[in-house]
Amino acid sequence: MDIQQLAVHTKAAAGPMSALKGDVKDRALSEIIGALKAGRKDVLAANAKDLEDAGRDGLAPPLLKRLRFDDAKIREVYDGITGLIALNDPVGLTLSATELDDGLELFKVSRPIGVIGVIFESRPDALVQIASLCLKSGNAVLLKGGSEASRTNRILAEIITSAGARAGLPGHWLGLLETRSDVTAMLKLDRFIDLIIPRGSNAFVRHIMDNTVIPVLGHADGICHLYIDRYADTEMAVRLAVDSKCQYVAVCNATETILIHQDVAGHILPVLQDALAERGVEIRGCDMTRSIVDVKPAVDEDWHTEYLDLIVSVKTMPSLARAMAHINQYGSGHTDVIVTGRRERALRFMDGVDTADAFWNCSSRFADGFRYGLGAEVGISTNKIHARGPVGLEGLMIYQWRLLGNGHIVADYTGSDARQFTHRKLNHNFS
Amino acid sequence: MDIQQLAVHTKAAAGPMSALKGDVKDRALSEIIGALKAGRKDVLAANAKDLEDAGRDGLAPPLLKRLRFDDAKIREVYDGITGLIALNDPVGLTLSATELDDGLELFKVSRPIGVIGVIFESRPDALVQIASLCLKSGNAVLLKGGSEASRTNRILAEIITSAGARAGLPGHWLGLLETRSDVTAMLKLDRFIDLIIPRGSNAFVRHIMDNTVIPVLGHADGICHLYIDRYADTEMAVRLAVDSKCQYVAVCNATETILIHQDVAGHILPVLQDALAERGVEIRGCDMTRSIVDVKPAVDEDWHTEYLDLIVSVKTMPSLARAMAHINQYGSGHTDVIVTGRRERALRFMDGVDTADAFWNCSSRFADGFRYGLGAEVGISTNKIHARGPVGLEGLMIYQWRLLGNGHIVADYTGSDARQFTHRKLNHNFS
Repeated sequence: MDIQQLAVHTKAAAGPMSALKGDVKDRALSEIIGALKAGRKDVLAANAKDLEDAGRDGLAPPLLKRLRFDDAKIREVYDGITGLIALNDPVGLTLSATELDDGLELFKVSRPIGVIGVIFESRPDALVQIASLCLKSGNAVLLKGGSEASRTNRILAEIITSAGARAGLPGHWLGLLETRSDVTAMLKLDRFIDLIIPRGSNAFVRHIMDNTVIPVLGHADGICHLYIDRYADTEMAVRLAVDSKCQYVAVCNATETILIHQDVAGHILPVLQDALAERGVEIRGCDMTRSIVDVKPAVDEDWHTEYLDLIVSVKTMPSLARAMAHINQYGSGHTDVIVTGRRERALRFMDGVDTADAFWNCSSRFADGFRYGLGAEVGISTNKIHARGPVGLEGLMIYQWRLLGNGHIVADYTGSDARQFTHRKLNHNFS
Repeated sequence: MDIQQLAVHTKAAAGPMSALKGDVKDRALSEIIGALKAGRKDVLAANAKDLEDAGRDGLAPPLLKRLRFDDAKIREVYDGITGLIALNDPVGLTLSATELDDGLELFKVSRPIGVIGVIFESRPDALVQIASLCLKSGNAVLLKGGSEASRTNRILAEIITSAGARAGLPGHWLGLLETRSDVTAMLKLDRFIDLIIPRGSNAFVRHIMDNTVIPVLGHADGICHLYIDRYADTEMAVRLAVDSKCQYVAVCNATETILIHQDVAGHILPVLQDALAERGVEIRGCDMTRSIVDVKPAVDEDWHTEYLDLIVSVKTMPSLARAMAHINQYGSGHTDVIVTGRRERALRFMDGVDTADAFWNCSSRFADGFRYGLGAEVGISTNKIHARGPVGLEGLMIYQWRLLGNGHIVADYTGSDARQFTHRKLNHNFS
């Protein structure tokens, strides 16, 4: 079956998927857990072969680590699905209810988006996670994994589709693409795919975003800032800088640039330098920073760089306004923090910084769906429409307007003796 | 100033625009009404010159009609702005509030999207309408009107920006593009424009959608269906068909195809034919339809066609399921109606038809922001993400996550004695 045919089948399954009752979907998720447990050895064996080939082909160690699907990853996958089962069905919620006139009632009802296209690099656990999220939200899904994980992905997809079929899911709700040329083809399938979620490196996500007219949910860069205001408490500022930079350096919500108000740079920078040095962090500073502490020089490229490493750029700022301008120019709209004792300055910062997550006096590392209590995380988005920041299941939902009448026609609401709309809020849900 | 420079300025204005208080924006809208009244004669004179040139250049009569900006259009524009002033400020609403832990509070707050790019063909009233919507919602806007309306657009833009400046709006919040080559350039400005709203013909909108990676809000085709079920009341079915087709044929929510269950076709079609003939509607029917009533034959192209005229295609259906499949194959996901006496069949239809507006026993012509009571209409969207169907001001909004702490760090929530998140719903709004 070529990719176009596969997409036709997946799109055809989207309708039946969207109409499934919550208990059917939850039963399917339980079946999937059971089937993964029963097929554990086969999955591990397939993954071992993928790892063997990848090792022979010289895949880089970080990619090998992502490719590995071991018992710890399996446990995470089980936990993720179990958590999904516990969530309420996101489909069919009444988002608004309005009487337009006597017997003419309008409801805005949550619905699945349709077909989600997911493109991920090495990690096979991403396949299970995203397939489960799509299932819970009533979406069909087209998955394209890394070719180095092809055996693992194939057996995981088989296990999931077989378990789903036993629970009553429609055929073809999950389609697996396998070759690299499929990605290019997939990006052109705007008639069949409603939303693409790419998982992988920044360059990979940027490539996807730049080469399709299909909406993309995700983020490329995570150039997060921590701005230490002139009214910041030194101890708090240093503690937040250390956590934001060091708590886990390889993730998108780690801070890459620290801005510091010049009036407090003189007494805070030495303390900050000591604390970061203790964690092995290399500081690259602007000229004024270097006149206060002995650090490497930063070049313009540094303000654009997501290090994902024990490196941080530091720049002094003459004002809050200039700090906001710097963040808006160099940031990626992901997560940006202000440390200040003045509430009105925090509010100015949040209003003025164009970012998904604007934080006051807490670590940038909190920008995460689980920490936010979203229950499940689809991903983190730096989009300006639909969903922004950590995205839960609602990122896979849209709505449908449902108007229920009794023979109502528009002609009655026009002309000289036109009927008037009541536009009265209703207190009952769609059912 | 070239278009890139203009876009840089507009983007720079987006921050200050997003931070404006509601009363400033409403005062600016009032100023704009006043300035339009004061400048009425100049606007009409500029429009007369545009009309003169367009007439000389042989612009088609429907386009000339759209180009005309007369007192009736001016009145509509005043009414629209007055209605906007009456609406609550959509910026800064608390969409959710959660305590993550003691003293660590998360708010999801509505925010403007940023820079809206609007591309419209001849209608100068669209310029005023969309500029007002962007202003009310705190967005900056780049406008590209039809070159045939250049004099009218220029004076309208001048009036609006001058009035806005008097009321305290930041400079460059509204940018006007003037040449045709600007459109191509605009579609590439994804660094500066967050959302494009195209207004114009289907082909024009389709062209925009297919040639940019910037999200587009709108609809190309409006191929709406009315399905007459086997349990439909004849009188109601005919009344709804006539209103859906004829009440205003040139609009996107007019019905283009009537599907009818074959078990009732024999007695409903003759009545329907009479009623439509009375309105001068040409029917193009499938073979079974033509075995019942004497009408022109439909070809496959007809099921794909948005006539926007007194023409309707009619096809008999063996089942509700086949009707849904037909709509999903040929429809444009705009508005689709079922006429039936059975509630469970209406629910099946709404669940199974992938459309923005799914109606039961009422006319397709109700799909409209004003009839829905949205207060203001940004447009009608057939998108599957962000906003769908008639879109009010909320289509110009996104949200920002705001986390307020007191020195909270993520390290405290990891490890063996990790603090637990409370994830407790808060009852107060962000302020």
